[in-house]
Amino acid sequence: MVSPPHHDSLATLLAGVRRPTLLLDEARARANIRRMAARMREVGVRLRPHFKTHVSATVGEWFRDEGIDGITVTSAEMARYFADAGWRDLTIAIPVNPRQIGELRSLARATELGLLVDDVVTARALARDLGAPARVWLKIDAGYGRAGIPWDAPRRALEVIDELGAGSELEPTGLLAHAGDSYAAASPDDIRAVHARTVERLGRLRGELQRPLQISIGDTPGCTLGEDFDGVDEARPGNFVFHDLMQLELGVCTAEQIAVAVACPVIGRYPARDQLLIHGGAIHFSKDRLAGPDGTDLFGYLARPHEGSFGPPERSVRLTSVSQEHGVLTADGPLPDDLQVGDVALVLPVHSCLTAHQFPGYLTLDGEFVERAPLAEPRV
Amino acid sequence: MVSPPHHDSLATLLAGVRRPTLLLDEARARANIRRMAARMREVGVRLRPHFKTHVSATVGEWFRDEGIDGITVTSAEMARYFADAGWRDLTIAIPVNPRQIGELRSLARATELGLLVDDVVTARALARDLGAPARVWLKIDAGYGRAGIPWDAPRRALEVIDELGAGSELEPTGLLAHAGDSYAAASPDDIRAVHARTVERLGRLRGELQRPLQISIGDTPGCTLGEDFDGVDEARPGNFVFHDLMQLELGVCTAEQIAVAVACPVIGRYPARDQLLIHGGAIHFSKDRLAGPDGTDLFGYLARPHEGSFGPPERSVRLTSVSQEHGVLTADGPLPDDLQVGDVALVLPVHSCLTAHQFPGYLTLDGEFVERAPLAEPRV
Repeated sequence: MVSPPHHDSLATLLAGVRRPTLLLDEARARANIRRMAARMREVGVRLRPHFKTHVSATVGEWFRDEGIDGITVTSAEMARYFADAGWRDLTIAIPVNPRQIGELRSLARATELGLLVDDVVTARALARDLGAPARVWLKIDAGYGRAGIPWDAPRRALEVIDELGAGSELEPTGLLAHAGDSYAAASPDDIRAVHARTVERLGRLRGELQRPLQISIGDTPGCTLGEDFDGVDEARPGNFVFHDLMQLELGVCTAEQIAVAVACPVIGRYPARDQLLIHGGAIHFSKDRLAGPDGTDLFGYLARPHEGSFGPPERSVRLTSVSQEHGVLTADGPLPDDLQVGDVALVLPVHSCLTAHQFPGYLTLDGEFVERAPLAEPRV
Repeated sequence: MVSPPHHDSLATLLAGVRRPTLLLDEARARANIRRMAARMREVGVRLRPHFKTHVSATVGEWFRDEGIDGITVTSAEMARYFADAGWRDLTIAIPVNPRQIGELRSLARATELGLLVDDVVTARALARDLGAPARVWLKIDAGYGRAGIPWDAPRRALEVIDELGAGSELEPTGLLAHAGDSYAAASPDDIRAVHARTVERLGRLRGELQRPLQISIGDTPGCTLGEDFDGVDEARPGNFVFHDLMQLELGVCTAEQIAVAVACPVIGRYPARDQLLIHGGAIHFSKDRLAGPDGTDLFGYLARPHEGSFGPPERSVRLTSVSQEHGVLTADGPLPDDLQVGDVALVLPVHSCLTAHQFPGYLTLDGEFVERAPLAEPRV
C-alpha cells in the first residue's frame, strides 16, 4: 500500500517546519464554507460572512467560489483591504467611530457600504458629514451586553432613525445584533435558546418600530445550531471557516472540521514533570483559554498528523501555559516517545481568530503560503 | 499661565488619533533604562537587557545611549533583526531549537552569540553542527518550572557540559535562569525572597559543578527589588523599559514610570450600565489580565492626560472585557462626562510586552512614529 499523496505532503511539510507556523487545511476550510452556505440557503438567510477570522484576500476567494458576494469586516482598515481585493459590498460591524468619517466616506464612495450606529450623536455626525450613500444598521443589544441599543428600548431606536433621516443618502436598513452570549452557553440546547431569544427580541423590536427593517444576526454557534430563523434576513458568522477548540467544546463543530493548527518545534523535554517545552507562546496562540479538565487554564491540545491533516485533539497532552514565546505542554502520565526535542508538535488553538491574527499568513497543507492583511499602521 | 509645550503636544496628538494607537513616552522609557542601568552598576552586575519587550531598533538606541552593548532576544529572527541594526553581542534566551541550527550558524558567524541548552541531545547537535564559535549557557530551572535543568541536578548539568566540550568552538559560559515565579509574588518581600532563592540556588549549583561558570538572572521584579546579587555576573530584565499595570500591582514600579498606553476612540456609551465601548480589543491589548477589585478580569485601567503624559490609573474605570476589536470600560458609578462618543480614552495595559507586540510600532508623545520589527515570516 502506498500512502495517499496528501498524507505524504503533510509529513514533508512538517519535516520542513523550523519555527512556529500556522497551518491551514484548505480542504477543511472550503468544506466549512460550503456547509455554512448550504445551511443558510436552506433556512433562507443571506450569508454575509465575517472576514475578521481569516483577513486574507486568498481565503476570501474561497467564499466567492461558494457564491458569496457580500462580506462583514470589523474596521475601516479591513474594509479597505478587502475593497482593494475586489469586494464591493461590505458591512463594517462595529459602531461607527466618529473620528474615521473621512475613511468611511472614501469607502462609501467606492463600495456599497454598511455601517452600524447605536447612538444619536454618531447618527447626527454621519448624516452631516459622511457625504456619500450608505446602508445604516441599528446596532441592537439583544442580551449580550457589549454594544447596541437595548432591544427593549424602541424609543431610543426611533431617535437614531430620525437623526439618520436628516441625511437623505443614509438608508436605515435594519436591526443588527451579535449574540456573543452564545459563547457562554453550557450546551447546544443553551446555544439554541440564546439564538431563539435573539431572533425573537429583534423581531419584537422591529414590530414595535413599524418600519421596513431587515434583521441581521451573526455568531457561528447560533448560525450552526439555531433552529428558528423566522424573519431573519442576513447572518454574519465568521469563525466557522476555521473553527477551533472553543467551537468543538461548545458542540458546534467536529474535530474533523478544525482547519488550523500551529506547528511548534519541541525545544525541551522534562520527563520528571511530564512536560515538554515548545517554541510557541502567547505571540502565536494569543492568551484565549478554556478550562482544562482539572479547571486550570487550557491554551490548546496536541494533535497528531492523521490522514493528511490534523487528527483529533489528544486531551491527554495539553498546552497548559504560554509565555511570550514559549509554551508548556503537560501530559497525563509519561511523555509520548514520538515527541523528542527537535520534533514538531501540532497544537490545535482555543480561538482561531486571535491565533491567526498573530501570524502574517498561513501555510496550507499543500505548502503554499497564504498571506493575511498586514497590520494596520497606527500613525495618526 | 501658559501650559508647558509638552502638555500641548499631547493634547494635539490625542486630537489627531483616529484608531487604536500605541503611545510611548520616550522620556519615561529613557528614565527607566537609566534607572536600571544605574542600579545594575551599583550592585556590580552587567546589564544585558531583554529586547523582546520593545523589539524596536530605535528604542534599542536609547539603551546604547546608556552604555549598553550586549542584549538579550527571544528568537533567531529577533537576533537577526537586531544584528542588522548593528548589535554584535546577543544572547538568544530560549533553549536552542535544533531545527534552526542553520540560522544560528549564520548569526554566530556575524556576532558574538550566546545560546541556551538544557539537554544532552541539543548540546550534541550544536557541537556537531553549529560550525561557528558561540557562548553556551546552561538553562537552569531555579524553581519556576518552565524550562531548564533542575538546579538540584548537577549530574545532568555536567552531562550537557561534557557534550559541549566535544565541540571546541562552544564555550560553556555559565548558568542562566529566569525567575518567572516572581510574577506570582504576593508582595515586594515575596519578590525579594524569590530573587534570593534563585541567586542562592544558582550559586550552590555552580559550587557543585566546580567550573568557572558565570551566573545570569533576569526578571524585572527581581532585578528591581532584589537585594542579594552575590556571585551574579549578568542580569537580563526586559519589561522595565515600559513597565505596566502588572509591575505596578507587584510594587515594582510607580505609575509615573509606565511608559506606554493605548489611545482608544470611544465608540459607544451606555449610561444605564455604566459602560463605554472603545475601539481597542484583544488584538490591541492581548488578553493578559489581572484580577480586578471584585475578582473579575481586568485588562486595563483608564488614565487621563496629566502634565504631558499619562496620569495614574483611574481604578474606578476599568477595561473589563476585550473582544477581537472592541473593549468595554466599566465605571464604578456614573460615566465620566469627559468621555463621550468621539473622545479618546487612554488605557494603561496589563502587560506591555504583549500589548506592544500587537502593534507595528509606537507613536511617541512628540508625534514621531517608532517602528517595531516586522513579524517574522512563518514560511518553512
